[in-house]
Amino acid sequence: MAQQTLEVLQSTDLKPKPDSSELAFGKYFTDHMFMMDYAADKGWQRPRIVPYQPLTMDPSAMVFHYGQTVFEGLKAYRMSDGDIRLFRPEENFKRMNHSSERLSIPPIDEDLMLDYLKELVKLEKEWIPTEPGTSLYIRPMIISTEESLNVAPSNTYTFMIILSPVGSFYKEGINPVGIFVEDEYTRAAPGGTGNAKTAGNYCAAYKAQERATANNKAQVLWLDAIEKKYIEEVGSMNVFFKIDGEIHTPVLNGSILEGITRKSVIELLEHLEMPVQERQISMDEVIAAHEAGTLQEVFGTGTAAVISPVGSLQYKDQDYVVNNGKMGETAKQLYETLIGIQTGRLKDPFGWTVMLEA
Amino acid sequence: MAQQTLEVLQSTDLKPKPDSSELAFGKYFTDHMFMMDYAADKGWQRPRIVPYQPLTMDPSAMVFHYGQTVFEGLKAYRMSDGDIRLFRPEENFKRMNHSSERLSIPPIDEDLMLDYLKELVKLEKEWIPTEPGTSLYIRPMIISTEESLNVAPSNTYTFMIILSPVGSFYKEGINPVGIFVEDEYTRAAPGGTGNAKTAGNYCAAYKAQERATANNKAQVLWLDAIEKKYIEEVGSMNVFFKIDGEIHTPVLNGSILEGITRKSVIELLEHLEMPVQERQISMDEVIAAHEAGTLQEVFGTGTAAVISPVGSLQYKDQDYVVNNGKMGETAKQLYETLIGIQTGRLKDPFGWTVMLEA
Repeated sequence: MAQQTLEVLQSTDLKPKPDSSELAFGKYFTDHMFMMDYAADKGWQRPRIVPYQPLTMDPSAMVFHYGQTVFEGLKAYRMSDGDIRLFRPEENFKRMNHSSERLSIPPIDEDLMLDYLKELVKLEKEWIPTEPGTSLYIRPMIISTEESLNVAPSNTYTFMIILSPVGSFYKEGINPVGIFVEDEYTRAAPGGTGNAKTAGNYCAAYKAQERATANNKAQVLWLDAIEKKYIEEVGSMNVFFKIDGEIHTPVLNGSILEGITRKSVIELLEHLEMPVQERQISMDEVIAAHEAGTLQEVFGTGTAAVISPVGSLQYKDQDYVVNNGKMGETAKQLYETLIGIQTGRLKDPFGWTVMLEA
Repeated sequence: MAQQTLEVLQSTDLKPKPDSSELAFGKYFTDHMFMMDYAADKGWQRPRIVPYQPLTMDPSAMVFHYGQTVFEGLKAYRMSDGDIRLFRPEENFKRMNHSSERLSIPPIDEDLMLDYLKELVKLEKEWIPTEPGTSLYIRPMIISTEESLNVAPSNTYTFMIILSPVGSFYKEGINPVGIFVEDEYTRAAPGGTGNAKTAGNYCAAYKAQERATANNKAQVLWLDAIEKKYIEEVGSMNVFFKIDGEIHTPVLNGSILEGITRKSVIELLEHLEMPVQERQISMDEVIAAHEAGTLQEVFGTGTAAVISPVGSLQYKDQDYVVNNGKMGETAKQLYETLIGIQTGRLKDPFGWTVMLEA
């Protein structure tokens, strides 16, 4: 799209900001949002920041029927000195375009979107909580809006960015989670939409999450769709294993979402001279390592938790405790380093953080 | 849910009805719609017929982010004598509940929904076109509406029924379609959502449809996700093969949608003493039958087309012409019988049609 002037329509009715202690995930939204429209004959147009507002949607809008939509998730951190930081936001817009390609949604201009995002976050800077562990969650999203039941890509879309102040993922300290290895339900298959961040992948996981919860486990570990043998992801996170001193993670195979925290962990461990083995990992191998006493750590990586240590794995009615149910040293080091870089407490040798001038 | 009084709020601003010649699929909508809300603490409530109207949706509504939604599709026919018929509508609400179960959506009362649907169609009877081949398409749908980014089943939903007069699928007579056998993209895997009628299954198919179109084929034939060897569906239809005088169709395996036209074709052929073999069918077998000269017919079955004959199959760069590209006798017989029963021109020995008192 050609550069277009960003319109800014400020809200005259500012909402009260919730207390940090009341924050949950994605429950409160700020005073403004970014919007932009797409029409097949006009491209992306009318970039604007407007008061946060409901959408007027025809019941025939394609998103309700055929699910053509993509989204992203990232966080802004504000330190007590007022500095505002985004973590690798360009990676989110790059992945969004990758997702859109799979869903036949027209691409956005990644650099322009980052500029617009920065303007929005600066306008909403008072909404960024500063308590340790809190942040402003950023949700870019595209929905298909054509009013037709024709089963085909939409001719019109709306791109939005909404913002939500979120509480600490670890209010009571970091407690390793139990995970349930799902060998019946499938998250994604080769040739499917697993490596796109699109709505249909998430609701498809709810039945498996019900089973995990019924087994007193917090999250699902997904196996491959074909042999139900190889590890894919944990819940909505990527997963890493420390076996006999080495770090391993499932190789990106087309059905695994390419996590930005995953990528950062791999780059960080490379920098620390602990190269990560990206490869196919079977559940049998993980159990064998557990039996041999070499399964030292398991942890998930994602935007919400950053690093989420795993304390136990339930697989075919057997429960396998990892590292005595405690957080391992590698997970701890990664968590502290990443959070440190994200919030600005630690130097960023990678150029990952984007500072906003407030 | 307990029986609740159906509110009816009539529109005072009736729209002009399109001419039959202008009708397409799902382009025009009638003057009224049915709505009903669900809240976790109240169940399904407030059934009402209201003027067709846009929805007011928060950008954080779960349907936009996590795709938790199901829908149905069926048709009402009106003959020149004024009789209005629905075709097996109870099967649609039954399948809707089956889909909802997979998507963790609360069930509806199937009998009550059928009553409400009848009221709506009766109110909109002037919208049912009467030209041969035309009908009133009925789209029941449920969307998740909770305003939260939490990745979990919604606590609130809206159920709607919208109506759209649709033109003949075969305006220029029935021409067999070409189909492209897709061996890269996947529609659905075992343990996935393939046998639920949910939004995410449809957008996931667009890339494959692009490939079919680029190859001058009208539709995609889907293979199984695991071996890319066994036949699943054609586009959004089920598929049948006549080989050496016998009719075969892929057995319902969990990743194939259980079509109501499919079920009706099987029951009709049973009645005609041509039992259908429901079994696993490989693409190799179909090609071998073609080579041996025993592949007599291929046809799809679905609500939109009823019966759609297949004139050619493209598989791994080879094109296989079926029945000289012409509609076969079985497809023709099935089409005429089903359309005859649906419109009331033929007697219905099965009790499939539901007559509405106008």
